[in-house]
Amino acid sequence: MPEQRTSSCPILWLTGLSGAGKTTIGSALVKRLLLLGLTSVLVDGDELRQHLCQDLGFSAADRHENVRRGAAVAVLLARQGIIPVVAMISPYAEDRLTARRSAFPCRFIEVYIDTPLEVCRIRDPKRLYQRVSSGEITAFTGVSAPYEPPAEPELRIKTEEYAVDVAVERILTLVLG
Amino acid sequence: MPEQRTSSCPILWLTGLSGAGKTTIGSALVKRLLLLGLTSVLVDGDELRQHLCQDLGFSAADRHENVRRGAAVAVLLARQGIIPVVAMISPYAEDRLTARRSAFPCRFIEVYIDTPLEVCRIRDPKRLYQRVSSGEITAFTGVSAPYEPPAEPELRIKTEEYAVDVAVERILTLVLG
Repeated sequence: MPEQRTSSCPILWLTGLSGAGKTTIGSALVKRLLLLGLTSVLVDGDELRQHLCQDLGFSAADRHENVRRGAAVAVLLARQGIIPVVAMISPYAEDRLTARRSAFPCRFIEVYIDTPLEVCRIRDPKRLYQRVSSGEITAFTGVSAPYEPPAEPELRIKTEEYAVDVAVERILTLVLG
Repeated sequence: MPEQRTSSCPILWLTGLSGAGKTTIGSALVKRLLLLGLTSVLVDGDELRQHLCQDLGFSAADRHENVRRGAAVAVLLARQGIIPVVAMISPYAEDRLTARRSAFPCRFIEVYIDTPLEVCRIRDPKRLYQRVSSGEITAFTGVSAPYEPPAEPELRIKTEEYAVDVAVERILTLVLG
């Protein structure tokens, strides 16, 4: 049975603060695409930090390079007909624009996972905000390092308003619609 | 129609000199796996050099880092049930061993694309050996930079003896058992 591959090779780029819900929504999206017979891979920022980008820190230069590598992996996949779902904080608008340009001619769908800082701080799934408060972590996005929200994302998901499965369906509608 | 994914997530690692036939065999292998309903991605050294690894040169340190990144991409894919076919010169035995270790618990299948230097030099598909001869390129693997052939690869393909499709079938037999 030959595999179904899409020819439009979109790149789904989820950006937002730490704890916003990027990985949760991204994972659910990948599963949903697979059920539709579409090949998809999650390119998760936390995982990149552990392996591909383990040599990088959190300076502005290293954050640029981190996002550049994530985009390069996404483009490699999209060119082979696989839908990459990138879940990276990617705090700088310029880096996301560079990623978008590098994706051409693939569609680049920027999804802003828009969760307010205070909500992320309360959720704190990885106990990172706690470590920021205690001074253990510095240069943390949204607190002591910048996050530049997308001005014109293809889609904005307010996670306080939508359940994960609803968010996934909204993204899917945009991708397949 | 849910996609077929393998649970054994092997990584196919093709190593050999420039011009040995890694990309040719790797591309054919990816197509063949797709026809079998298995999801596969080519992680090609030349493509990595153009994008993901564009910041790297050809010093020993940069070659280590280049192979490390190729392995990291492969592991990311294999962990999501996609079969990466890595086509990289990967001249150092130690780097290939590190890649193998990083792949665990995925199977790491090292395939030595064993084409003699003189044959690669005659084929010279990218006119690189010509540029080495003219002195335009230095530190070229097999000529002015080391290539450490695998001592115990899972498979050795002598491209002078096998046509591409035969090579692909030999690799497939090893993968699918």
